[in-house]
Amino acid sequence: MVRYKMTMEYDGHLFHGFQIQPHQRTVQGVIEQALEKMTKGKRVIVHGSGRTDAGVHALGQVIHFDYPIQKSFIPADKMILALNSMMPTDIIFKEAEIVDENFHVQYSTKGKWYRYIVSLDHFVDPFKRFYTGHYPYKLDLHLMQEAAQDLLGEHDFTSFAASGGQIIDKVRTIYYVKVWEKPEEHEIVFDFIGNGFLYNMVRIMVGALLEIGNERRPVHDLRRVISAKDRQEVRNTAPASGLYLYHVFYEEVPEKYRLDKKKD
Amino acid sequence: MVRYKMTMEYDGHLFHGFQIQPHQRTVQGVIEQALEKMTKGKRVIVHGSGRTDAGVHALGQVIHFDYPIQKSFIPADKMILALNSMMPTDIIFKEAEIVDENFHVQYSTKGKWYRYIVSLDHFVDPFKRFYTGHYPYKLDLHLMQEAAQDLLGEHDFTSFAASGGQIIDKVRTIYYVKVWEKPEEHEIVFDFIGNGFLYNMVRIMVGALLEIGNERRPVHDLRRVISAKDRQEVRNTAPASGLYLYHVFYEEVPEKYRLDKKKD
Repeated sequence: MVRYKMTMEYDGHLFHGFQIQPHQRTVQGVIEQALEKMTKGKRVIVHGSGRTDAGVHALGQVIHFDYPIQKSFIPADKMILALNSMMPTDIIFKEAEIVDENFHVQYSTKGKWYRYIVSLDHFVDPFKRFYTGHYPYKLDLHLMQEAAQDLLGEHDFTSFAASGGQIIDKVRTIYYVKVWEKPEEHEIVFDFIGNGFLYNMVRIMVGALLEIGNERRPVHDLRRVISAKDRQEVRNTAPASGLYLYHVFYEEVPEKYRLDKKKD
Repeated sequence: MVRYKMTMEYDGHLFHGFQIQPHQRTVQGVIEQALEKMTKGKRVIVHGSGRTDAGVHALGQVIHFDYPIQKSFIPADKMILALNSMMPTDIIFKEAEIVDENFHVQYSTKGKWYRYIVSLDHFVDPFKRFYTGHYPYKLDLHLMQEAAQDLLGEHDFTSFAASGGQIIDKVRTIYYVKVWEKPEEHEIVFDFIGNGFLYNMVRIMVGALLEIGNERRPVHDLRRVISAKDRQEVRNTAPASGLYLYHVFYEEVPEKYRLDKKKD
């Protein structure tokens, strides 16, 4: 068996999320199907760095799988070509490497980077409907930038986790937050890097930041929301279409992205 | 009856083209259906500046229709809101005005602007698969820029028209051609403005220019192809996904876009 670590992009809008599910088109399902063809019937389990929900995209999802050595060993760059030739056009593999058995794509992560894009157009742009969230209301960028600082550092993010999850420990550390504008595209971009994110956490944080930008919450309301540890504090979950798993770190997150350290 | 002229965008990838067809989802069909609901059952015929094929997009398609005055007159800006509220998310109306009965969206045109976008990525980017053509081979931008000049002016474009059309006069004038690069996106953009375009003409011109950029044709081969008046001269039609109806002119095409005059 050889363990391959592979970095990929996918357009999530026609997938029922990453995780395999019966009778649904999922990213994991499509890849495992291809690998099963390549091995002529052996099941190869694909592990992802984390799940993405239906409609959520990836620019830097990472997977690993153990591939049996059959007739011959497949070098990493050949594995990219082999898999890409079997993928539907909404998935593409960009990088591959052989890793040792101590590497685990989920447990070896040092950090994750999510990006959320919001279109500010009055109506939903037909070309962005699957690829952005949409907020056609008044929005103060500086208020959101100031509010985002309150998320940095280690907190119990219970207020920002969709209910129903099995995870008990809801303490996570956010290393980096940036809220910035793409004026030509009429878009606001939210970048979050942290040691992990709870179910729907990024979409709930974006929902709350938009409410602050629209002045429906005071600028430092997130401090109160975090302390409350109550999911009812934020009702506005931004839609899946704007969310991208942007990068997964397997080395320590670089110092320039450790704004939490500068904050202390 | 009041005649409305309306400018619209659409993402063509889920439409079977502009023109209404039985049992197919088309742009014209979707708009006529909405208008029929608004008039409580009266058929309102929608005229387009021209057809677009299945998969072809529009950033500036223009339509007109005659709307019956029923209870009350609908101002142009209210017509935008009314129609947008009934459109699927892949269509959006941007502008509207009331025009007199001498205006006809097809026969009053003074020029059309088509844009074609080619992605140069090695593999098809999942996020571009419906929105660009794809050419992962060696491409010399300057050769294409030089070759494109041969298309300017009045020519018989028989060699660039899909066979089977009913149009006999295949003489058209191309006013403006620009081939340019978007280096960050790794894309080449082709802009064409002319007094009219034959069926598939832009996609066939792009196909020929790509062959020149790849040095599979000499740089001034288009002169020969035009003279030949033979569709067999260009076999490579660029795919629909990269094509955008960008703008329709109802005023004279501005001097800055009349490169054909400067050429003479």
